[in-house]
Amino acid sequence: MEILADGGVTSALGFSAGGTIAGIKPSGALDFGLLVSDQPAVSAAVFTQHAAPSACVIFNREQAKSGTTRALIVNSGNANAATGAQGLANAREMAALASERTGIPVDQIMVCSTGVIGVQLPMDLLRQATPRIPLASDGGAVFAGAIMTTDTHSKQIAVQVELEGRTITIGGCAKGAGMIHPNMATMLAFITTDAPATHGWLEGALKRCVADTFNMIDIDSDTSTNDTVLIMANGAAGGPVISGGSDAEAVEAGLKAVCEHLATEIVRDAEGGTKLITVDVTGAPDSESARKVARIIAGSLMVKTAVHGNDPNWGRIVGAAGNAGVPIDLETTTIAVGDIVVFRHGEPHPFDHASAVTHLAGASVRLLMDLGAGAGTARAWGCNMSEAYVTLNSVYTT
Amino acid sequence: MEILADGGVTSALGFSAGGTIAGIKPSGALDFGLLVSDQPAVSAAVFTQHAAPSACVIFNREQAKSGTTRALIVNSGNANAATGAQGLANAREMAALASERTGIPVDQIMVCSTGVIGVQLPMDLLRQATPRIPLASDGGAVFAGAIMTTDTHSKQIAVQVELEGRTITIGGCAKGAGMIHPNMATMLAFITTDAPATHGWLEGALKRCVADTFNMIDIDSDTSTNDTVLIMANGAAGGPVISGGSDAEAVEAGLKAVCEHLATEIVRDAEGGTKLITVDVTGAPDSESARKVARIIAGSLMVKTAVHGNDPNWGRIVGAAGNAGVPIDLETTTIAVGDIVVFRHGEPHPFDHASAVTHLAGASVRLLMDLGAGAGTARAWGCNMSEAYVTLNSVYTT
Repeated sequence: MEILADGGVTSALGFSAGGTIAGIKPSGALDFGLLVSDQPAVSAAVFTQHAAPSACVIFNREQAKSGTTRALIVNSGNANAATGAQGLANAREMAALASERTGIPVDQIMVCSTGVIGVQLPMDLLRQATPRIPLASDGGAVFAGAIMTTDTHSKQIAVQVELEGRTITIGGCAKGAGMIHPNMATMLAFITTDAPATHGWLEGALKRCVADTFNMIDIDSDTSTNDTVLIMANGAAGGPVISGGSDAEAVEAGLKAVCEHLATEIVRDAEGGTKLITVDVTGAPDSESARKVARIIAGSLMVKTAVHGNDPNWGRIVGAAGNAGVPIDLETTTIAVGDIVVFRHGEPHPFDHASAVTHLAGASVRLLMDLGAGAGTARAWGCNMSEAYVTLNSVYTT
Repeated sequence: MEILADGGVTSALGFSAGGTIAGIKPSGALDFGLLVSDQPAVSAAVFTQHAAPSACVIFNREQAKSGTTRALIVNSGNANAATGAQGLANAREMAALASERTGIPVDQIMVCSTGVIGVQLPMDLLRQATPRIPLASDGGAVFAGAIMTTDTHSKQIAVQVELEGRTITIGGCAKGAGMIHPNMATMLAFITTDAPATHGWLEGALKRCVADTFNMIDIDSDTSTNDTVLIMANGAAGGPVISGGSDAEAVEAGLKAVCEHLATEIVRDAEGGTKLITVDVTGAPDSESARKVARIIAGSLMVKTAVHGNDPNWGRIVGAAGNAGVPIDLETTTIAVGDIVVFRHGEPHPFDHASAVTHLAGASVRLLMDLGAGAGTARAWGCNMSEAYVTLNSVYTT
């Protein structure tokens, strides 16, 4: 697998994208983007589990049923959430605008929004802006910029996988859960590939990859009304359709690498966060138990603040882990900070305190908890919590 | 019901208590307490659900089975958690020390610890200190002081309930989840009453009251290894044994008032918190759904930081509520900040922004969410999140 560091959603063959300034954001930044496949594309999507999802998520859930998506229109600066029947009508109109602009049937178009909750979209601005969105086969970076809200930088990647006689490219971009502006919240990730794939395989692969990457990150334990991960596979690379076997495994490994990169980039760019915390749980009774323990450690405020203070505070890891609903026997448990064992078999383990502090002071922190109870493993990612998080999220702006 | 503002665990007839300085805390503050009933007492207790509970919780779970407790010995400054077999032996020895000191059989003694995780108790200090704990019928305040860790003040209350021909007193004290010192965490509450009661009724009443009070507070969404609520009913007030009917209802109302006072005092004294947030959820499909929604709102970082910034940010309330696993129809939902409606029937409701900000700037903030879906109601309490919380919890001290 080769990583294309400058890659993005237009790295795969047959995709074009672009973005423009519709005027939704007071800042005057890019806020409106379009991503198009030159040919019909098999698609799969994963949406937020929020009980009151945004209008675009409601709309996309219907659209996703066909398993075919050729275009995606996205605005930032307004989430189109808690906007009632008018919001749903506006999501439909966004799809219609994209259809007019591209000639692609409305039923192959998805719509995403991210930004302020509870405000109707300025449809006049979107109507005026749609025709001027530039579409280019190298427009992925502009598109990635147009979906940002409070992200400090855009997040993109592409990878190439060599199969027998063909090269498959998988690229993606994402935006994070920046929430400086009150009510803002969304994690969006869009992935394109020129692999030919069946809908069934693509959907399964996306769900498995999301479960191990986007669903294992925690910034502040909130789930947004708009979270969406979408993949389009247009088959432009040619060759046999992927539905299983070793080719499928290689492509799924590429997809997982793209997802993991984008997910950890979101955490690295978290508000008020300065460190990426990788939590590995091993020796759990099963992988589902491992996932629960890893997520609760990565999400614990006690752990996040301890890491912020460079404190090798294993008691807080025990404290968090015990609330995951998973049986824990401390007598068989080992805890390490970086490579330094701090707790083993029910008792504090003597360790070089200064080395642990040095590890915690770095930009990448690793915490390991081995439960000594089975073969279940999982990895989760979180960030430290700083005073800046609170300041950013309590700034008075509405 | 009459509230005794200066009341505590020795307000009820037939209880004595006291505390001393064993020397566990480097600060030299009170750290060792004893609470005794003059006569056998029916007891009930509720313990943490943590998967790796402290040695004292493991010990007390066994002790609690008899339903009879006459004495409680408590140290602060050391949680006796993650301390393995030695920790359990130390908990047993603490009960033996209390038995020697009071003449009460070991099987009627409970043991609690709160403080640092993962350090063995200094048993020599406890052995020396036990004989000098003063026991007095007005010693409740000293006892309440001895169980504190990072609480800024002790938390006590008593109420009196008039029944036919007798006065029942219910008093209690608690300590909060102060966690300035890394690894510290415990919520403890001890309640005494001179009501005569059956074990079955007392246990049921305690569980109902805890479910609506201590279990509905959120400071930082962590559950400690040591959380314990214990009630002793010694019957010193005389009269018929309470097991149901109108007398039981009156006493349970008194017990609930004591629990609610102590629970909200813990929130008011939360680290870095300056406001008590009361969240009322009404119109839920059922009360369990209402509880879930109320707790998730009270525990949401997005809501806590918005309240900290005096921002009437109803989008964050919608955002948090949608993650409770309860269906929410925004079309029937109403949200209010104090008495000010900000969202009604799927749409933002025009409101006087300055009035909402004024309400949020007060020490007591009320948030209401009516789901318009049924008769379920619940109340939860939380606190704002300030920069000081992060600072306190990331201070480098181990």
